[in-house]
Amino acid sequence: MDIKKGVEEGLEFTPRFDANGLIPVIAQDCQTGEVLMIAYMNREALDQTIRTGHAVYYSRSRRQLWRKGQESGHIQKVEQILVDCDQDALLLKVRVSAGQCHTGHYSCFYRAVDQGDRAKLTVVSQKVFDPGKAYNRPGS
Amino acid sequence: MDIKKGVEEGLEFTPRFDANGLIPVIAQDCQTGEVLMIAYMNREALDQTIRTGHAVYYSRSRRQLWRKGQESGHIQKVEQILVDCDQDALLLKVRVSAGQCHTGHYSCFYRAVDQGDRAKLTVVSQKVFDPGKAYNRPGS
Repeated sequence: MDIKKGVEEGLEFTPRFDANGLIPVIAQDCQTGEVLMIAYMNREALDQTIRTGHAVYYSRSRRQLWRKGQESGHIQKVEQILVDCDQDALLLKVRVSAGQCHTGHYSCFYRAVDQGDRAKLTVVSQKVFDPGKAYNRPGS
Repeated sequence: MDIKKGVEEGLEFTPRFDANGLIPVIAQDCQTGEVLMIAYMNREALDQTIRTGHAVYYSRSRRQLWRKGQESGHIQKVEQILVDCDQDALLLKVRVSAGQCHTGHYSCFYRAVDQGDRAKLTVVSQKVFDPGKAYNRPGS
């Protein structure tokens, strides 16, 4: 089996981190199927996720590990970790009990490109929590 | 409204491409909710996707536009384009009539990290088409 075939057909988990040491991760609600967010993990975040059973990401803006829900309490319990064909992306099936976006929406994908005016967005879901309270940041 | 608030709360579609001019894109089956794949678009791929209504990606390995299904015929009809809170990722709700992974699987996420041995993968879905025939590449 050549290397490409091994990565695609094999049963060894060999996630491929990019030049920055990161891999993109999709979080999907295991109950509703809704795509909640996309974030990134480094090796340490992935190891902690596997060890603890709760999603831990790497914040590119803050340049540090980010235990999802560490501030808001809106954690993600990981039910399953899937890897794609070339092992350079992960899909987490997660169990959640609160909105997952820091804006107060259930999913980060709360706006759709408008069918009429492609430069505009339409809000397709309402907020499910008050981010000002969840993060204790007035006006956030 | 500050810039961050504008990006998150505003209704202007201002997708943020990375240093390589790319934005990650999740394709989700609009009928089953299954996450099919993650790929990347540059500005031209996004424009063509919006204009044609069929997913066009940018292949990082081939360094060229990639009209999904151009070889296999396994196209993605785009029903909705969603953008995330900070507008640096897209979610495409797509209608498909065939498996979407070049390996023959319906989704690229056909293997899960094994619950017992975290270094191993378990195949969680079977192939739905013969890639050798779809791509006319013996043994591919």
